[in-house]
Amino acid sequence: MEGIDYLAEERKKAEFNVDEMKIVWAGSRRAFEVSDYISKLVADDPGFSKEERTMLSRKELFKNTLRKSAYSWKHIIDLQLSEEEAEKLRYFVDEPAFIDSHLGVFIPAIKGQGNKEQLKKWLPLAYKMQIIGCYAQTELGHGSNVQGLETTATFDPQTDEFVIHSPTLTSSKWWPGGLGKVSTHAIVYARLITDGKDHGINGFIVQLGSLEDHKPLPGITVGDIGTKFGNGAYNTMDNGVLRFDHVRIPRDQMLMRVAQVTKDGKYVQSDVPRQLLYVSMVHVRQAFLTYASGALSRAVCIATRYSAVRRQFGSQNGGQEIQVIDYKTQQSRLFPLLASAYAFRFVGEWLKWFYTDVTQRLKTNDFSTLPELHATTAGIKSLTTTATADGIEECRKLCGGHGYLCSSGLPELYAVSVPACTFEGDNVVLLLQVSRFLMKTVSQLSSGKKPTGTIAYMGKIEHLMQCHSDVEQAKDWLKPSVILEAFEARAARMSVSCAQNLSKFDYPEEGFQELATDLVEAAVAHCQLIVVSKFIEKLQQDIPGEGVKQQLVVLCSIYALFLLHKHQGDFLATGYITSKQGLFANEQLRALYTQVRPNVVSLVDAFNHTDHFLGSILGRYDGNVYPKLYEAAWNDPLNESDIPDGFHEYIRPLLEQKLQTARL
Amino acid sequence: MEGIDYLAEERKKAEFNVDEMKIVWAGSRRAFEVSDYISKLVADDPGFSKEERTMLSRKELFKNTLRKSAYSWKHIIDLQLSEEEAEKLRYFVDEPAFIDSHLGVFIPAIKGQGNKEQLKKWLPLAYKMQIIGCYAQTELGHGSNVQGLETTATFDPQTDEFVIHSPTLTSSKWWPGGLGKVSTHAIVYARLITDGKDHGINGFIVQLGSLEDHKPLPGITVGDIGTKFGNGAYNTMDNGVLRFDHVRIPRDQMLMRVAQVTKDGKYVQSDVPRQLLYVSMVHVRQAFLTYASGALSRAVCIATRYSAVRRQFGSQNGGQEIQVIDYKTQQSRLFPLLASAYAFRFVGEWLKWFYTDVTQRLKTNDFSTLPELHATTAGIKSLTTTATADGIEECRKLCGGHGYLCSSGLPELYAVSVPACTFEGDNVVLLLQVSRFLMKTVSQLSSGKKPTGTIAYMGKIEHLMQCHSDVEQAKDWLKPSVILEAFEARAARMSVSCAQNLSKFDYPEEGFQELATDLVEAAVAHCQLIVVSKFIEKLQQDIPGEGVKQQLVVLCSIYALFLLHKHQGDFLATGYITSKQGLFANEQLRALYTQVRPNVVSLVDAFNHTDHFLGSILGRYDGNVYPKLYEAAWNDPLNESDIPDGFHEYIRPLLEQKLQTARL
Repeated sequence: MEGIDYLAEERKKAEFNVDEMKIVWAGSRRAFEVSDYISKLVADDPGFSKEERTMLSRKELFKNTLRKSAYSWKHIIDLQLSEEEAEKLRYFVDEPAFIDSHLGVFIPAIKGQGNKEQLKKWLPLAYKMQIIGCYAQTELGHGSNVQGLETTATFDPQTDEFVIHSPTLTSSKWWPGGLGKVSTHAIVYARLITDGKDHGINGFIVQLGSLEDHKPLPGITVGDIGTKFGNGAYNTMDNGVLRFDHVRIPRDQMLMRVAQVTKDGKYVQSDVPRQLLYVSMVHVRQAFLTYASGALSRAVCIATRYSAVRRQFGSQNGGQEIQVIDYKTQQSRLFPLLASAYAFRFVGEWLKWFYTDVTQRLKTNDFSTLPELHATTAGIKSLTTTATADGIEECRKLCGGHGYLCSSGLPELYAVSVPACTFEGDNVVLLLQVSRFLMKTVSQLSSGKKPTGTIAYMGKIEHLMQCHSDVEQAKDWLKPSVILEAFEARAARMSVSCAQNLSKFDYPEEGFQELATDLVEAAVAHCQLIVVSKFIEKLQQDIPGEGVKQQLVVLCSIYALFLLHKHQGDFLATGYITSKQGLFANEQLRALYTQVRPNVVSLVDAFNHTDHFLGSILGRYDGNVYPKLYEAAWNDPLNESDIPDGFHEYIRPLLEQKLQTARL
Repeated sequence: MEGIDYLAEERKKAEFNVDEMKIVWAGSRRAFEVSDYISKLVADDPGFSKEERTMLSRKELFKNTLRKSAYSWKHIIDLQLSEEEAEKLRYFVDEPAFIDSHLGVFIPAIKGQGNKEQLKKWLPLAYKMQIIGCYAQTELGHGSNVQGLETTATFDPQTDEFVIHSPTLTSSKWWPGGLGKVSTHAIVYARLITDGKDHGINGFIVQLGSLEDHKPLPGITVGDIGTKFGNGAYNTMDNGVLRFDHVRIPRDQMLMRVAQVTKDGKYVQSDVPRQLLYVSMVHVRQAFLTYASGALSRAVCIATRYSAVRRQFGSQNGGQEIQVIDYKTQQSRLFPLLASAYAFRFVGEWLKWFYTDVTQRLKTNDFSTLPELHATTAGIKSLTTTATADGIEECRKLCGGHGYLCSSGLPELYAVSVPACTFEGDNVVLLLQVSRFLMKTVSQLSSGKKPTGTIAYMGKIEHLMQCHSDVEQAKDWLKPSVILEAFEARAARMSVSCAQNLSKFDYPEEGFQELATDLVEAAVAHCQLIVVSKFIEKLQQDIPGEGVKQQLVVLCSIYALFLLHKHQGDFLATGYITSKQGLFANEQLRALYTQVRPNVVSLVDAFNHTDHFLGSILGRYDGNVYPKLYEAAWNDPLNESDIPDGFHEYIRPLLEQKLQTARL
C-alpha cells in the first residue's frame, strides 16, 4: 500500500468505533476473528492471486481454478481447518469451482437423502475426495419445474439394477456445476419407473467417469455447456451437459432414505416425512443471503471509497474539484445500497436462526413453522438477490466510466452474482410462492387461527386496514413504530386486495394466473416488511461500541425511507399516507444522507474486506486509485507489443492503400 | 434453418401485415430495403461470422476485429457503398472497432472544427484511411467535466509550434476508442496557453505513431487501458491511454474554425458561433437513440421467441407444458419492453427530424430552438439508454438460466449496450441538464414568453395544475387525450414543485445541489411525456397495412400505462389521479397484454433481424432452440478433450490422495 492513506481524512471523520462495527457486521467476535484470520491468510498468499483472472482464456482460466481448488484443499488439510473455516476459505478464495458443488450440494444431498448404509459407504469417499460429485437435476428443457424432468430410471429386476436413460434431447442434464469436466459421480434426479409405473422424481448416485483415466464410462456423454456471462466469473466452473444411453447402476445407488425399491421391484415409502427433503433446498437458499449481503457490501465498499477519491466539477479559483460523494444524486443512489447491505446482513442472521429453530422443531415432528420458513426463505432470497444484482450494477455506474473496466472488479462481481436471481428458484416464481402463502394466511384469518412469526401482523388486520399515518413533520418518520405500521399497513392492504380480487374468479387457479403481477407486488411488500422489521428488532438489542448503534439507527431509517419513496405508489394507493407525508419522508431521507455522510467510508471499512477479496483498484483501501489504474493497464495482453497482432495483415494494407491485394 | 419453422403456429396468429410493419419499423420503404440488403449481405458472408467471438482471448479477438474492419472497408470500396450504406454495413457487422471512432468522431470533429485549409489537407487523408484517427478528450481524472481537462498545449512563438504535454498522471488521456493500438493520429483536447494565459479547451491534431513502422513517436506513450466488461463486447476496441512528454506540433494543427492562434501568439476568436461545436455532441447523442432502440429490439426479439418456445409447468394428463409467454408475470415484464422498443424507435425518428430542423435554422443564425434540442437530446439519450440496458438484462432473466449462456447472445448485448448510460454524458448528469432547462422554462412562464415544441404544455400550466383525471372505467385509459393530459399534468406539477422548493434557497446553486434527486425525477417525467406524446403523434399519421396501426395503438397504450403503473407514486402524489383510477389503468394494462399476445412473435419479426445480427440461439427465427444449444456446447474450448488441461496436475492428486507431494 506504499504507506500513504489517501482516505485518511475521510476515516478521521467517523463518529463511531469502527472495530466494534466490524464485530456487528461479522455477527460475533468469534465470527469476526475467523473471517479476519482466513481472509488475510488467503490475501497474503500469492497462490490465490486473482489479478489476471479476467484476461485469461477459458482454458487457462479453468486450469488455474483447478490449481486453486487443489491448493485450497491442501490448506484445509494442512491447517486442519474446521468445516466453518474451510467454508470461509473457499469464500475468500472467491472463485466458483467444482469443489463448491462437491462440498455444497453433492455431500449434503447424500447426507439428506441417503439411508444409513449409503452414508457409510459414500460419505468417507466423498469427504476424502476419492470421488468428486455434482448434483444433476436440471435438464435442457426443465428448470423450475422439477416434476417435469424427463430422465428415467427404470428398475430391471432381472439384474437388480436401474437403467438410467435420457429419452429425449431435452432430457439432457444441463447446468450442474462441476459436471462438465471434473466430477466422477453425480446425484442424478430421474423418474423412477418400476414395472411400468412412474413413481415420480428420485435421486440416484451414478458414476460418470473412470477412476483410472477419467474417461466417461460407456453410455455416458458428458461435457461443458459453454461460455457464460462475464470475464472470469462463472467461467471457472464446468457447468455441464450429460446424456445417458441406458446406463446401468446397482439398485442400492438409489438414495433410499425416503423411498426404497425392493429387490422384487416394489416401491415403498419410508416413514421419513417428505418435508425433510424440502429443508435442504431451503438451506441452500438461506445460504444465498450471506452471499448476497456479502456481494452487495463489496460493490458498495468499492463505490463508496472511489466516490470519496473521485472529484469532478465545482472547483472554484483553481481549487480542488468536489468529491463526487458529496453530490446528492450520488448519495441518493449509493447510501440506500449501503443501508441495504447492512439490512440484508441482519435479516440473514435472523433467517439463519429461524432455520435452525425450524430444524430443531422438525426433530420433534413439529412441522408447524415449516411453511413460514419456506415462504420467508423464498421471499428473502428473491428480494436480496435481485437487490444485490441491481445494486452492484448501480455501484458500477456510480463509478463512471472506470467502473466498466475489469480492473474495477465490478463487472465480474455482477456477472458472478446475477445468476442467483435465476438459480435455486427463479426470483419471480419464488415471489409467487410467497403470495400463495399470503393468500392462504388471509383466507384463514376469519377462522380464528392466529398468525404468528413474520405474519403476526395479519392478526391486527382490522386495525391495519383502517389506520392512517399520523406523521405531522419530517422527523416523525424516524420513529420505528411509525415506519413499522406503514410497512405493515401497506403489506396487509395489498394482500387483502389481492385476496378480494381472487375471490371474484370462479376457478382460483385462473385468478392466480390473471392476477400474478399484483400477487408478486404484494409478496414484495411483505418481504420488505420482514427486512425492515428485522433491522428494527436488531436495534432493540444491546449493541456495544461508541456510536455504533447510532449509525445503525440512521442506516435503518435510510433503508426504510428509501423503500417508502421508491414504492410511494403503494403507500399512497392503499391510502395509508398522504402525499404530504410522502414529501416529509423524502425530506427526512435527504437529512439522513447528510447525517451519515461523514461516516460512510468507515461504514464500508467495517466490512473488513481485504484488497484481495475486493479485487478492485477503485476500491483500494488506501484510495491510491489513479497510479494503480495506470499501472494495471500495461498488464493487458494487448500491450505486450506496440504493434498489435494483425497490424501487418490488416492495418498496413489500409494505410498503404493496398487493400485490393490483401488476404482478409 | 433445416426447413422446419417451430414458430409457425405463432406466426399464423398475427392479426396484421408483418411486411408493412417492417416498413414502419425501418422508417420508410427505402430505409427498409437498404437495411434488408446490407444485413443479409453481412449475414451470408462467413467472413463476418460472430460465432466464436465470446470464446476468444483478448488478442485473438482483437486481431479478428482488425480483420473484419479491413474486410468491411474492402466491401465498402468494392461495392461502392454510399455513406448511409457503409454505416449500415458497420452496424450489421456488429462489432465495435477503431473504424467507428475514425469515421464516427475523428472525421466529424475535423469537419466541424477545422477551417477550410484544414479540411482540404486532412479530410482526403482520413477518407482514404491513409491516416487513422481517434478523439482524445477524456482523461484519467476527468470525464464529464471537460473544462477540468489538464493536458496543455502551450504555444511557442519561437518555433511557431504548440507543445502538447501531460503535466500530471491524471491528465493522461484515457478511454478514447481506437487510440490504444491502431490510430496514427488523434484530435487531442487540451488547455491552450499562449504567453502564459490559459484560453481554455481547444482541439489539436496530433500524430501519434510513425506511418512507416507504426511505432509511437518520441514523447508519446500509448497503450490499451485493459479488459472491459463482458465477453467479446467492447474488448474488440482498443480504448487507449496516452501521455505526452512535450510533444511539438505545427501551429496549423490547432483546429481553427472557432478560434485561432496567430503567428505572434495572439488568441483570436472567429465569428463562428460556439454553439455550432455543441451541435456535433448533440448529433452523437441523437445517434444513440437508433442504437438504443435497435439493441432493445434485439433483446426483446430473443426473449419473445424463446418465451414462445419454452414451456414450463402446467401440463395436464401428460400433455405439453404451458408456453412461458402465456404467463402474466412473463407478459407484464416482456410486453412493455416490446412496446418500449417501438416507442424509442419513433421518438428517435422524430428527434432526427428535430435535429435536422435545428441545424437548418442555425444556418440562418436562428438559435432559438437550440436549447430545446440540447435538453431533449440529453434527456431522451438518458431515458432510452437506461431503459435499454435495464431492458436487455430483464430479457436475459426472462430467458431463465439459458439466458446466462453466451450462446443466448444476451450477455454480450448487455455488456456492449450498458456503457451508453455513462459515455457521451452520464445519464444522471444529463437529466440534471434537462431539469435546468425545465426550471428556466418555469421561471419564464410569468414573463409571458410562450413555450413551444416539447415544452408547449407548460403554456397550459394553470389548467394542468388544477385538472383531475376524468377516467371512470378502465377503457377510458385508451383515449390518447386522457393519457396525454395525465403525463402533462404529472410533468408540469413535478417541475413547478421543484421550482417552488428551489425558490426557498438563498443561493440557487445550493438549491440545485440539495434538491438534485427531485430535479432528476422531474426531468424523467418530462422525458417520458415526450416519448409518449411522440408515439401518439405517430399514430395520427396515415399508416398503411392491414392491422398495422391497430397493433401500434395497442403498443402505445401498453407503453403509457406501464409507465403510469410503474410511476404511480408520481401520479398519485401530484393528485392528478385517484388510486381507483390507478387500478383501472392496471386493469386495462392486463387486458392489453391479452390483446397483443397473439401478435408478439410477428411484432418482433417486424424488426427484420437476421439470425446473424441477433447472434442468439434462443432467438433463432425458426425456434429450433434445444438441438442448437446442445450442438453449440461442444464448440467450447473446454470440450476439446475429455480430460481437461490441469487434470493430471491438480485433480488426479486429489482423487489419489497424493496432495502432499503435488506441485500446486
